Amino acid sequence: MKLYDLPASPNARRVRIFIAEKGLEIPSIAIDMTKGENKRPEYLAKNSLGKMPVLELDDGTCITESAAICRYLDDIHPEPPLLGRTPLERAQVEMWNRRMELEILVPLMQVFSHTHEMWKGVLTQVPEWGEVCRVNTLARLDWLDGEIAGRDYIVNDTYTVADITLQCALVLGKAVGVRAPGNLSNVGAWFERAAGRPTARA
Amino acid sequence: MKLYDLPASPNARRVRIFIAEKGLEIPSIAIDMTKGENKRPEYLAKNSLGKMPVLELDDGTCITESAAICRYLDDIHPEPPLLGRTPLERAQVEMWNRRMELEILVPLMQVFSHTHEMWKGVLTQVPEWGEVCRVNTLARLDWLDGEIAGRDYIVNDTYTVADITLQCALVLGKAVGVRAPGNLSNVGAWFERAAGRPTARA
Repeated sequence: MKLYDLPASPNARRVRIFIAEKGLEIPSIAIDMTKGENKRPEYLAKNSLGKMPVLELDDGTCITESAAICRYLDDIHPEPPLLGRTPLERAQVEMWNRRMELEILVPLMQVFSHTHEMWKGVLTQVPEWGEVCRVNTLARLDWLDGEIAGRDYIVNDTYTVADITLQCALVLGKAVGVRAPGNLSNVGAWFERAAGRPTARA
Repeated sequence: MKLYDLPASPNARRVRIFIAEKGLEIPSIAIDMTKGENKRPEYLAKNSLGKMPVLELDDGTCITESAAICRYLDDIHPEPPLLGRTPLERAQVEMWNRRMELEILVPLMQVFSHTHEMWKGVLTQVPEWGEVCRVNTLARLDWLDGEIAGRDYIVNDTYTVADITLQCALVLGKAVGVRAPGNLSNVGAWFERAAGRPTARA
C-alpha cells in the first residue's frame, strides 16, 4: 500500500494519526499542490477530484476520502479498535466522529478557504461566510465543553477516530486563529491529553 | 426502537429509505421545528444539537447523525447489505457515500439554508455563499455524470447507501431549483432508476 499525502492537510493528518495508532507503516508520497501535482493526469487517474489523501492498494485500486481509508484499515487491522467494537459502540463512534467533522472540522476548513490568502484566485472566496463559520465553530466548542465533562475522550474513555478528527480540527483552528477560549476547561484538558499521545505529530 | 423524524429533511429521508430497503418497520414520531419542538428540553435530552433524525433504542439510548443510525441498523440487520460486504467494498461504498454527501448533498443544503426564506432570522444567511454552492453543485453533477458512465448504481451495479444519499440530495435540489441539466444522461438515467424503486417515497 501507498499513501498519497498532503502534509499540512487536516484530512491527511487524520489518516496519518490513524495509521500510527494502528501501529502500521505505510510508505507515503507527498503531493505538492503548489506545483499542481494533484491536477496532473496520473494523479487524477487515482482521484478524479484531485484531492488528498489517497490510499493505493498493491493492485492499483485507489481509495479516496479519509473516512473510507480509515474504515478500510480498521477492517483489515482491527486492533486496536478505533471505530468501536460492538454495534452500539460503532454507532456512537460514528455519531461523534460526524459531529466533530461536520460541526467543527468542516466549518474550520471553511474559515481557512474563505479567509486565507492561499485560496485567493483558486476558489471563489466569500469572506463573510468564513467569518460566520468562525462564530459557529466557537459556539460548537462551547457546546462540546459541556458534552465531554467527566470523560477522558470524546466517546467515553477510549481514544477513537472521533478524537483524531477533533485533534486535527483544532490544529487547523490554531492556524486560522480560532482557539477554544480558556474557560472551556474540558476541551482544554482533552486537547492536552490528545496532543500528548506519541502519535499526535504523525 | 423509535425514530424521531423530520419528514421534509433530506437526512431524515436517507434514514427512512435505508430502513425501508432493509425491510424494517420502526415507528416514527415527527418533530415539528416550526413549533420549536426540537428545542424543548425533552428533545434536547435526546440530541443536544436539536437536530433530526434520532434513533432511540429500547433502553433509551439515542443515536444521532444519519450515517451513524444507518451503520447501527446495518450492523444488527446485515441483509441486504447497503454498506458493502468485503473490506474493499465497504471502503468503496464509504468513499462514494462521502463524495455524494460532501460534494453534492451538503452544498445543496447550503443553497437551501442561505437562500430560502424559511431560514431568515433563524441562522445567519450569506446568500452569496448559497449562490457559490449552486454553481459548485452543478460542476460536481457534471463530474459525476462521467464517473458513473456504464454503471447501474453509484458503486458498480449494486444499490447502496451512496445511492440513497444522492437520491435525497437531488430531491432537495429540485426544491431549491438545482437540477441536473438534460445533457447529463447518466445522472438522469440513474435518477430514474433510483426514484423507481419501491422505497423511494419512504
